[in-house]
Amino acid sequence: MASEPLCAPGPIHIVMVGTTHPGNIGAAARVMTNMGLSSLRLVQPRCFPDPEATARAAGADDLLASTTVFDDLPSAVSDCSFVIGATARARAIEWPLFDSVSAADHVVTESLQGGAAVVFGPEASGLSNAQLDLCHAHLRIDVNEAFPSLNVATAIAIVSYEIRKRLLSSVSAVPSRSEKGKTPVTMGEFDGLMSHVETVMDETGFFLGPRTKLLRKLRRMFLHGVTTGEDVNILRGFLTAIRQKLGYQRPR
Amino acid sequence: MASEPLCAPGPIHIVMVGTTHPGNIGAAARVMTNMGLSSLRLVQPRCFPDPEATARAAGADDLLASTTVFDDLPSAVSDCSFVIGATARARAIEWPLFDSVSAADHVVTESLQGGAAVVFGPEASGLSNAQLDLCHAHLRIDVNEAFPSLNVATAIAIVSYEIRKRLLSSVSAVPSRSEKGKTPVTMGEFDGLMSHVETVMDETGFFLGPRTKLLRKLRRMFLHGVTTGEDVNILRGFLTAIRQKLGYQRPR
Repeated sequence: MASEPLCAPGPIHIVMVGTTHPGNIGAAARVMTNMGLSSLRLVQPRCFPDPEATARAAGADDLLASTTVFDDLPSAVSDCSFVIGATARARAIEWPLFDSVSAADHVVTESLQGGAAVVFGPEASGLSNAQLDLCHAHLRIDVNEAFPSLNVATAIAIVSYEIRKRLLSSVSAVPSRSEKGKTPVTMGEFDGLMSHVETVMDETGFFLGPRTKLLRKLRRMFLHGVTTGEDVNILRGFLTAIRQKLGYQRPR
Repeated sequence: MASEPLCAPGPIHIVMVGTTHPGNIGAAARVMTNMGLSSLRLVQPRCFPDPEATARAAGADDLLASTTVFDDLPSAVSDCSFVIGATARARAIEWPLFDSVSAADHVVTESLQGGAAVVFGPEASGLSNAQLDLCHAHLRIDVNEAFPSLNVATAIAIVSYEIRKRLLSSVSAVPSRSEKGKTPVTMGEFDGLMSHVETVMDETGFFLGPRTKLLRKLRRMFLHGVTTGEDVNILRGFLTAIRQKLGYQRPR
């Protein structure tokens, strides 16, 4: 069941984290194929492969067969340069929050530079704060406040539909985060930078109290400021220089 | 679970015809409530009420409780002044065909004048040609041609989502079919007109061969030309005059 060619050369991944009901995986695979998307990634699904997933996929077998399972979210998005996480809640620390149309715009634009991923959490709880921190931006589908709980496959349907609409239109609505001609940073590179920073902060005795909140704020700053592989190299070069000056040997 | 107030004063109905899987009815009820819609009508569902519908509704109990069951499509839309039917196929006779965005525009605009309905067919086959003939216009959600079969609840999700987006925007994108200040024709009135016409055609020996194709074309013409109750009254007055002249007594 080949997808028809669309105008986005970059890969767009749908990532389902901790999905409880395999039927939702099948329903997601079906609507993704309806909308011409072809990459589904699962993080610790309760049950996959599963006959219920196959039944609800209703023939979207190619996509299910190519679906890959990961141990954690960072691994699932390590080759992506833009990650957006679905949420139903407002949060304490301000993260860029897009509606479904803007989210699709950004996903398509960023996919032209490198891989883009849209991440959906478990049915009962959604993505955790720690998982949302891994994302460049958040996505909230506008719903009736009195009954806001969208089925996860329905949310994927709406986002896939908006991505398709965006792919079929020729208008470039948003500028890419990274400069033209530069290689965008992947999440794997970014995570390498963050742990490099944390190591140096540890080694320099920077952390006096609990580090979690501070690291989240730092992550948010870096997610928006650090957009190319070159940016990462510069910062990591600086961190390495600091460590060498402190007398630590490579590798950290 | 009350819906939040939106800007459309007119009722918008989702109509599911011949639904086979009660789970799809529940999923439709859930996403309709998510999107602030509150009227679901069923035509000859295989099984309703049903525990699977209740489970998949995930708490959208008010909407399920108020869902009404009809014997046929004309009864289900008899109080509506605009009816649009979902289809996956192109058809021989040209009917106005809208994409999901334009369909939502029209549904919202027409609902300001009178009731509007969006009709979805059985899972396996979709709406029949005869059922599509009952509609003023058709709706086709753009999908991957290589895998076009959308789950019916997913199609309802996309349309409900577009209707909500349209309701939350203040822009009036399309003019209403009926003139300002005139009462729009309901489908019940329209069906009365059509059978009145057919009676007179019978009585006048108008039909020489099979009538189906001709009646469809006529229906299409009338659906677009006849937009107000006054239009119906004029035509029916004319038909009555013809019958009286032919010597038939009221009522036909």
